[in-house]
Amino acid sequence: MTLSMYQASVPFFLRMLANLRAILEKGEAHAAARKFDAAVLVQARLAPDMLPLARQVQIASDNAKGCAARLAGVYPPRFEDTESTFAELLARIDKTVAFLKTLQPGQIDGSEERDIKLPLPNGTLDFKGLPYLVHFAIPNFTFHVVTAYNILRHNGVPIGKTDFLGK
Amino acid sequence: MTLSMYQASVPFFLRMLANLRAILEKGEAHAAARKFDAAVLVQARLAPDMLPLARQVQIASDNAKGCAARLAGVYPPRFEDTESTFAELLARIDKTVAFLKTLQPGQIDGSEERDIKLPLPNGTLDFKGLPYLVHFAIPNFTFHVVTAYNILRHNGVPIGKTDFLGK
Repeated sequence: MTLSMYQASVPFFLRMLANLRAILEKGEAHAAARKFDAAVLVQARLAPDMLPLARQVQIASDNAKGCAARLAGVYPPRFEDTESTFAELLARIDKTVAFLKTLQPGQIDGSEERDIKLPLPNGTLDFKGLPYLVHFAIPNFTFHVVTAYNILRHNGVPIGKTDFLGK
Repeated sequence: MTLSMYQASVPFFLRMLANLRAILEKGEAHAAARKFDAAVLVQARLAPDMLPLARQVQIASDNAKGCAARLAGVYPPRFEDTESTFAELLARIDKTVAFLKTLQPGQIDGSEERDIKLPLPNGTLDFKGLPYLVHFAIPNFTFHVVTAYNILRHNGVPIGKTDFLGK
């Protein structure tokens, strides 16, 4: 097997989203066990000017589907960012996973030199596929997964590195 | 250009370590500006049972040099984990970068099927090179860089996503 643009993206996103899903389930279970409102965790932040857990999950979803779609040259599904419960965040992950699974290796492999245009509020970032994947999409996606983990860990949810990395 | 095991590892680690270095410098500058002991940040944690900033940086260093060395089939340099100041953590990053720069693409490319043995306290994890890089080393390394960022952000250091992703 040779490393390829598909191998370095879709299976990576799928595995990390599955781990994030399991971490969120542990967060919800922790709130139930301690008898506090799970919405407190969904809206928890690490700093007043950082985004809350719900947004971390939404952005991780956007990064995964957006990256894979851009590399494949297709449009990703658009989700409305209305999730406010753990159940809705889990469903958001499931919708993201379902889209990622529609993409075939042949659509993404060979996208190293593909022109990627990333629309941002203040302009457009232009990349080639390879540096976009390795130096932007992978660290950006992982940032939001780790920050979701850290928000829950900071709030006492019993999770560890194995939950983050998966088995 | 074709994505390769080298392209997906060493340049990624180098860029993220440079970003981590700049983030730590902002942490040190923040402590100086607010006139508190920078050692408070070096020992700061997100949870009582999480590792402090210094250990996050040491482990990110270990993950980067360990991954690249294993893929190349060489031994990484061993560092003693004695850093207790920002200056020492920056030097640790510099030593890690210097080692990574000694590795040539030809040593790492083609390592997809290489047997990787990862010694752990309670046994050995066996991988092939490709899943080791994509599903273990990249997320594990990034976890510690993001957690270092989150520790500083949680403690009021003025950093943002651009510092994490680099320019």
